[in-house]
Amino acid sequence: MRASYHEELESVLEQLHEMSHLVEIAMVEATQALLSADLERAETVISDDAKLDTMHEELEYKCLSLLMLQAPVAGELRTIVSAIRVVFELARMGDLAAHIAKIARLRFPSHAVIGDLEPNFLRMSEVCVKMIRVASASLRDHDATEALQLAAIDAEVDDLRREHFTTVLDDSWTGTTAQAVDVALLGRYYERFADHAVAVARRVIYLVTGSTPEGHEWPNA
Amino acid sequence: MRASYHEELESVLEQLHEMSHLVEIAMVEATQALLSADLERAETVISDDAKLDTMHEELEYKCLSLLMLQAPVAGELRTIVSAIRVVFELARMGDLAAHIAKIARLRFPSHAVIGDLEPNFLRMSEVCVKMIRVASASLRDHDATEALQLAAIDAEVDDLRREHFTTVLDDSWTGTTAQAVDVALLGRYYERFADHAVAVARRVIYLVTGSTPEGHEWPNA
Repeated sequence: MRASYHEELESVLEQLHEMSHLVEIAMVEATQALLSADLERAETVISDDAKLDTMHEELEYKCLSLLMLQAPVAGELRTIVSAIRVVFELARMGDLAAHIAKIARLRFPSHAVIGDLEPNFLRMSEVCVKMIRVASASLRDHDATEALQLAAIDAEVDDLRREHFTTVLDDSWTGTTAQAVDVALLGRYYERFADHAVAVARRVIYLVTGSTPEGHEWPNA
Repeated sequence: MRASYHEELESVLEQLHEMSHLVEIAMVEATQALLSADLERAETVISDDAKLDTMHEELEYKCLSLLMLQAPVAGELRTIVSAIRVVFELARMGDLAAHIAKIARLRFPSHAVIGDLEPNFLRMSEVCVKMIRVASASLRDHDATEALQLAAIDAEVDDLRREHFTTVLDDSWTGTTAQAVDVALLGRYYERFADHAVAVARRVIYLVTGSTPEGHEWPNA
């Protein structure tokens, strides 16, 4: 019984990795669709998001079942509770990648992001991909040290966002109002994607160290 | 032991109500600050948000302690798991109200929302307040029927958002690019606030009926 329980927990963790890999692909593809005004690619990201939502439901259900049907001990309980949160964060990240793809689709055949801002969004996407990778690796390796780096990496996303706000609100901005609005909303989606990666890392810290980043000790069973 | 356990669960539910009341106030005050360019009011919403974040941490910790230190049976477990999610949603709603207040503060002494769009944002806020009230009442009354109404009410938020996009992107729009960007981001914050109210309602449906809105049956212990 216990052995199969551990196997089930392991399979939950494996599925979380698979999901985070799919989220990473969604971010890369959505940015590609955005910057090259690629409708087909945008449609794929949008339709693939439904798979992530299904994985979210199934994994959450599996975790709740493990919680209800078994009597997990301390470490297991911590794993299950963390997994429920991580799966939620990953699903939101997938939604945000789909939001980016939807703006690409809405503006097709035009480019939602005009030339000057392309490097900014490309960099934003690179940082986001790095963040999901670090978060996922820290979960796989049970490594709180890796997870702790995330907040520092996140600072670059805020800088990039400030940078594109400065561009679209400057007097020299030659784009349309719609383009400025797109940039602002897209920036928000990338920023939130990064925030969710930080949230995953916080759960890993919780899981590994048994205390929250706020310093609460995890209660011992 | 059991009696005091039930008392602790009851106190968690009471604190969730208190928190949802504070979130409602934050939304009302943030909108007021926004529409009347009231700096002091905006500052209050922003500083009060820290209290909601503290409540979030404390309540989540309390729920995890109940989960770890006791062996909750089916109904109790459902309550605790739902409470952990609801407290998270409420904290996010508080953050979004603070984001609205921050835009009011950023534009002070100007108005971030110019005249024509004031009724739109006032209505958006009214719908959001209605939604948090319905979600909170459904939680208090354990009433899934109330909770099920939320998705329908949410549709009005989407309509209002479409309406203000049409306004700022129309050729007749006389505002600045910065004002259009503010409107787009503010609209996103109200929309997300409403989405989180729907998420609270989904948790109540889970809690009361024992099945998810997707139709998964809740596992029985």
